[in-house]
Amino acid sequence: MNYSCSFIPTLREVPADAVIISHRLMFRAGMLRKLANGLFTYLPQGLRSFRKVEQIVREEMDAIGALEIKPTVIVPGELWKESGRWDSMGESLLRLKNRLNNDFVVTPTAEEAFTAIVRDELSSYRQLPLTLYQINTKFRDEVRPRYGVMRGREFVMKDAYSYHTDEKSLDDVYQAMGRAYRKIFKRCGLSVIPVKADSGAMGGSGSEEFMVESEIGDNTLILCKDCGYAANVEKAACKNDYTMPSSVEDAKKTAAVTPPFEKIDTPNVKTINELCVFLKTEPKSFIKTLIYRAVNVELDLSCAPGCSLLEQSKPLTDAPSVYPQAFFAVAIRGDLDVNEVKLASVLKASEVGLAADADVVRLTGAPVGFAGPVGLSGLPLIADFSVTAMSDAVTGALEKDLHCKHIAYGRDFEPWMVEDVRTVKTGDRCSTCGGELYIKMGNELGHIFKLGTKYTRSMNVSYLDENGKSRIPVMGCYGIGIDRTLASVIEEHHDDAGIIWPASVAPYHVIIVPIKYEGEVKLKADRLAAELTDAGLEVLLDDRNERPGVKFNDADLTGIPWRVVMGEKGLSQPIPQIEIKHRREKGNSMINLDKAAAELAQKIREEINQLNN
Amino acid sequence: MNYSCSFIPTLREVPADAVIISHRLMFRAGMLRKLANGLFTYLPQGLRSFRKVEQIVREEMDAIGALEIKPTVIVPGELWKESGRWDSMGESLLRLKNRLNNDFVVTPTAEEAFTAIVRDELSSYRQLPLTLYQINTKFRDEVRPRYGVMRGREFVMKDAYSYHTDEKSLDDVYQAMGRAYRKIFKRCGLSVIPVKADSGAMGGSGSEEFMVESEIGDNTLILCKDCGYAANVEKAACKNDYTMPSSVEDAKKTAAVTPPFEKIDTPNVKTINELCVFLKTEPKSFIKTLIYRAVNVELDLSCAPGCSLLEQSKPLTDAPSVYPQAFFAVAIRGDLDVNEVKLASVLKASEVGLAADADVVRLTGAPVGFAGPVGLSGLPLIADFSVTAMSDAVTGALEKDLHCKHIAYGRDFEPWMVEDVRTVKTGDRCSTCGGELYIKMGNELGHIFKLGTKYTRSMNVSYLDENGKSRIPVMGCYGIGIDRTLASVIEEHHDDAGIIWPASVAPYHVIIVPIKYEGEVKLKADRLAAELTDAGLEVLLDDRNERPGVKFNDADLTGIPWRVVMGEKGLSQPIPQIEIKHRREKGNSMINLDKAAAELAQKIREEINQLNN
Repeated sequence: MNYSCSFIPTLREVPADAVIISHRLMFRAGMLRKLANGLFTYLPQGLRSFRKVEQIVREEMDAIGALEIKPTVIVPGELWKESGRWDSMGESLLRLKNRLNNDFVVTPTAEEAFTAIVRDELSSYRQLPLTLYQINTKFRDEVRPRYGVMRGREFVMKDAYSYHTDEKSLDDVYQAMGRAYRKIFKRCGLSVIPVKADSGAMGGSGSEEFMVESEIGDNTLILCKDCGYAANVEKAACKNDYTMPSSVEDAKKTAAVTPPFEKIDTPNVKTINELCVFLKTEPKSFIKTLIYRAVNVELDLSCAPGCSLLEQSKPLTDAPSVYPQAFFAVAIRGDLDVNEVKLASVLKASEVGLAADADVVRLTGAPVGFAGPVGLSGLPLIADFSVTAMSDAVTGALEKDLHCKHIAYGRDFEPWMVEDVRTVKTGDRCSTCGGELYIKMGNELGHIFKLGTKYTRSMNVSYLDENGKSRIPVMGCYGIGIDRTLASVIEEHHDDAGIIWPASVAPYHVIIVPIKYEGEVKLKADRLAAELTDAGLEVLLDDRNERPGVKFNDADLTGIPWRVVMGEKGLSQPIPQIEIKHRREKGNSMINLDKAAAELAQKIREEINQLNN
Repeated sequence: MNYSCSFIPTLREVPADAVIISHRLMFRAGMLRKLANGLFTYLPQGLRSFRKVEQIVREEMDAIGALEIKPTVIVPGELWKESGRWDSMGESLLRLKNRLNNDFVVTPTAEEAFTAIVRDELSSYRQLPLTLYQINTKFRDEVRPRYGVMRGREFVMKDAYSYHTDEKSLDDVYQAMGRAYRKIFKRCGLSVIPVKADSGAMGGSGSEEFMVESEIGDNTLILCKDCGYAANVEKAACKNDYTMPSSVEDAKKTAAVTPPFEKIDTPNVKTINELCVFLKTEPKSFIKTLIYRAVNVELDLSCAPGCSLLEQSKPLTDAPSVYPQAFFAVAIRGDLDVNEVKLASVLKASEVGLAADADVVRLTGAPVGFAGPVGLSGLPLIADFSVTAMSDAVTGALEKDLHCKHIAYGRDFEPWMVEDVRTVKTGDRCSTCGGELYIKMGNELGHIFKLGTKYTRSMNVSYLDENGKSRIPVMGCYGIGIDRTLASVIEEHHDDAGIIWPASVAPYHVIIVPIKYEGEVKLKADRLAAELTDAGLEVLLDDRNERPGVKFNDADLTGIPWRVVMGEKGLSQPIPQIEIKHRREKGNSMINLDKAAAELAQKIREEINQLNN
């Protein structure tokens, strides 16, 4: 392709709203333009790289036996009503009506569409497992789309859905997807952090996210310096840096040497910091007790303290019964924080938040600031693991201006449940190897997830098993954002001058820059371009009538892996010479013109092979 | 690909709503399933062929220097308001609002999006010409979607848009597009009828449609048996089978030998047929005069009879002024029909229809059935060319129960305009060669069109020319429906047993059918599949445990060009033999197993080459 025949509008400046590197460079390198807020047009240079990412994803999906199909982008609202997501999805779901007043959605994911297809075709266990995928347009009605295609409204996602007779078969495909995802990101030159969303305290491994480090990431990641443990902070476990008793009985023994608890006057002392000053001690000697309100609690509370009068709401569909609202006390060591996502997960609640002051007063019988685990009877008490090792602690006394000291876990109070509900912090220890944990911000590029029967049940999918019995298939779903993946490659591979493409996703492999595109130089540049093309390379020939400096700057900015410079001087040598330079390297080298095509082809092949294996 | 690993749900029966061949066969061959009315999912087998059509279109676009880009499917309504199409497009435009109450459209074509991109990037004449295209999802909110993907709501279209400094440059790209389109359809194995929409009486050649014959086609085509002339009936010209005077003066001379006109009593005679019986003559001796009402007439009527009081409506935007309503009399030979599309085109009206009876009475001063050109003064008279050769005709007399005879064109009346407004019929003569014209129904697969400055003007696109003067580029647009093209291939290539794919768009090139997939047959079938794949062919291996009859039926139904049958008997020959058969042929032949891969590769290559050249 001759530069003058393409459409690569490079820019020296960038729009003010382009704050991240990939967004800035995609604009500056003429890959992308904005059509409206969160809506972007890929220009030819951008689309070439985009299609390469797409193709890598397609090849790896095909390699594990996933079958590509193409449902529509506009999907009947009826299907979303069947699954329940028409109501449960928030406003980010773009709903619309056509001229006949039928409901539709511009699909953000396609569990419904795929499951509807499988429902119609599935009859026998012999048809399973079945893994289908699409690479297609999606829409998410972001309120504040930002960061270019990293968080756009319209985007392209590869989404796959698998259907199985049993968990074992689901796990096989889930594992194969995990391996395929690792390969996809490696082929794109990306360092991803696979994060098992629930690999720690929560048990099981039904979900894995593929993250890239990013300053503007949506996710806080907890990583281990030693063993590679990685988790979303919402789910991260850590080693408890205290001796945990093996049972409540053990804790009771430890508590035997603690003096009996006593109440102490603490006038006008409410916060832990105030109490530390007052008692001349540290926060880690306190048991902090917080009152939470939880919404739509699925956990069985029939035997929980203070819950005997709670009524479950009757579910409209197949969904389980829930308590619309319930209150809980959470006890945790004074220097630690409660992780509300972990707590919600423990309670199987859709939402968890600190209770209002009035509720705290009503449930604890004391003003805010004096809650404590001892004598608390009006609501279920959940103790974080950190509390189980505390045998001489300070707590609130459930009375104004009073605290208790010499409180021993197991002796003075017994919680309803003991769970890991603490937020992991930098410096905590890894639950797997004891190594030091640290925090990074990350962006999710892919996600694999065991869905179970959520959709197949609500949408009435069934098949006949070996014995002719009707059964519901289990399901997995697997997504990769194509636009985000592409942008992340740029985030990871660039310098001050522009993009540095890995050969696998570069728009072209080689850019030929003739110093002056005329006479003998023109002839030889054209011939080299033809030879490189014949060798299977993609070549951009900068035939513009521009100063070499302009051409070099554009070559650096657009990030094509190999730059070939051809000038009269080199070509007039007894053995004609050209200059080649890899975008990543500072230095260049001169090679014989007649060997250039073979040598460059070899280098590109090597680089791509290295990414592939 | 092993059959058992794919997902090809073939059917013996078809849904009741599948009335056309391609729709039935796409369902039966497991290519397609319905998601909702007018919304379809391509299954793996269908998607393979779909992508091949897409790729052929892409290659031919790239070959003429068009550059692929990817705007969004959801496009800001603002752009459509700028172009005026937000208001002018009917309800088939799917409009929607997002959560922020912004207007969007699900794009049916992309003049606006492309022109917005070009507007932002275009500064100099040196950047032109520029041809951009996309192959992307489109939506048209059909009230009654029918015929499967032939007229679906969501579909994929290749749409290209070109921008130029002048008409010559536009014409160059327009002609190149026309050649590319011919090549695309040939490569897909399609017989298309290129129809120059205005090649005849209307002058110019700014639009060409690419049609395929189809019983359920939307378009009526007029074709010449001899010279290949083809036109949409809406625009078709034909040879006037009468001597047309070269001027009104000539007609006056002819009229000199006609007796003076006289009125005749025709009590209770209103229709031409009644009049024929009454006067013992034929319809072609009559001048039929019809009163039309036209809406939004752009033609200048300031000097037209009876129009002096008409007022033009002030346009809101850049659009030209129009008369919201105007009436016209149209005179045409009694055996011919007025073509309302031609008439609307002559009047530059958005709509034309017969006037209400009350308007006829008011404008002609006589009851319906007695209109005539002589003495008609209250509205402009438009004569079809057929009338200009009539020098002794019968007409209505503008009085109840009276007609006139011996009416001569040019002597007894002079029309305001003379134009071709007649509908061409089977048996008419070709305007180009005089050959016999006939009618076919057709479906439009592609369309190339010179748009001029309609969009570039309304959306304020400009560039600086060689002299630094600001100018508006001229524009062309060029579409091909991918789904329709694919369905049309099936319409043209099938028999009672199923599809007969041209090799270029077949989902696989070869299907291997082992009589029993076990033992030695299995080994050799696997090896042949690998050899064919290495030779660059796409192979489906029917490894199912089904009777040979079932496998043969599915092979015929899915239409894969070459079928290879492998059985113990042939393979146990001294030189192992297999049976090969082309889907199009009745007979099969035995060939040596060890030569099969090379031979089949050669045959497929030949077939594809033949389609390509």
